[in-house]
Amino acid sequence: MALYIKSVENLINEFRKLPGIGPKSAKRIVFFLLKLPYSDIVKFSRSMIDMKEKVKFCSQCYNLTEEDICHICRDQSRDRKKICIVEEASDVTIIEKTGEYRGLYHILGGLLSPIENIGPDEIRVPRLLERVKANNIEEVIIALNPSVEGESTAVYLKRILTPLGVKVTKLASGLPVGGDLEYADEITVGRAISNRREF
Amino acid sequence: MALYIKSVENLINEFRKLPGIGPKSAKRIVFFLLKLPYSDIVKFSRSMIDMKEKVKFCSQCYNLTEEDICHICRDQSRDRKKICIVEEASDVTIIEKTGEYRGLYHILGGLLSPIENIGPDEIRVPRLLERVKANNIEEVIIALNPSVEGESTAVYLKRILTPLGVKVTKLASGLPVGGDLEYADEITVGRAISNRREF
Repeated sequence: MALYIKSVENLINEFRKLPGIGPKSAKRIVFFLLKLPYSDIVKFSRSMIDMKEKVKFCSQCYNLTEEDICHICRDQSRDRKKICIVEEASDVTIIEKTGEYRGLYHILGGLLSPIENIGPDEIRVPRLLERVKANNIEEVIIALNPSVEGESTAVYLKRILTPLGVKVTKLASGLPVGGDLEYADEITVGRAISNRREF
Repeated sequence: MALYIKSVENLINEFRKLPGIGPKSAKRIVFFLLKLPYSDIVKFSRSMIDMKEKVKFCSQCYNLTEEDICHICRDQSRDRKKICIVEEASDVTIIEKTGEYRGLYHILGGLLSPIENIGPDEIRVPRLLERVKANNIEEVIIALNPSVEGESTAVYLKRILTPLGVKVTKLASGLPVGGDLEYADEITVGRAISNRREF
């Protein structure tokens, strides 16, 4: 006999597949759901299907949207000469929240990785080049994670974008605001020194 | 304009209601789900509804079951003269996993709490008394959390069960196995001293 009854076990297993949810959290969530009224569960379950059915990729920038073109690409008040390159659609909201950027985006959907056989075609580079050429883009801002894959994808993008006469910039590396020199790693401190600015 | 599109926002909000899931985890989970194939989402969503539709309370002990009587109450090889009292159905699996107990259970579904207006009738005490009387139960083992509510519920149960001539026991308090005296709180060490056993 299994420890849980079948339908409970099944749902625990579904929750365990989610990122950051281990066996104990999954169990806790399922027993929490058991106490909710049926209507709440139906609503939850419906939201899940709903999202999957409605969400599409923007035909311009691959951002998430329920229309053909996302709200950022539609917004005529934005600076249409700048494109910010991010890895995932979720990164768009991180940049948007800062309020520092009013241009367009391009979502790669991944990073170059020869080991996993992910080349430029898999990360929507052809569409990026098309957009840069067709719209006389003046600046491309690379906002990828400062990881090995992020850095090498950035180097690759710079190499293919520069010949198009577009300015290529990259998010600054340095100490996090409110951070402490003592707790920063050497590489970050090193970058902060080499990228120092006149004050 | 909200930060996320509506259907994504809705699902993030649903996940945020779950225990142990904050805004960042909820966002991470939803973006993970966006990448899964439609069939996986339908399966997940179906498991949720399925569990809610199938799971009932055992008519004997209030354990979770898909039948009328749970697998533990049905199991004739178990010791039917012992009842272990737990707070939640999820506690049953914790006791079962130890392999130390082969009797029956009674799930209270809560603890006494005068502040929240939870009295004996709300925690299935009448049914417990019925079961103890009808089945000539010999021992009732109280396996509630060693919290204030748990302890006071235990005291109450002992008071009403003792007159029925049933032996009432309680899980031992003491040092956790593999624990360290240095890190145990005074109350636990105090209990371990007063409950010391001949060795």
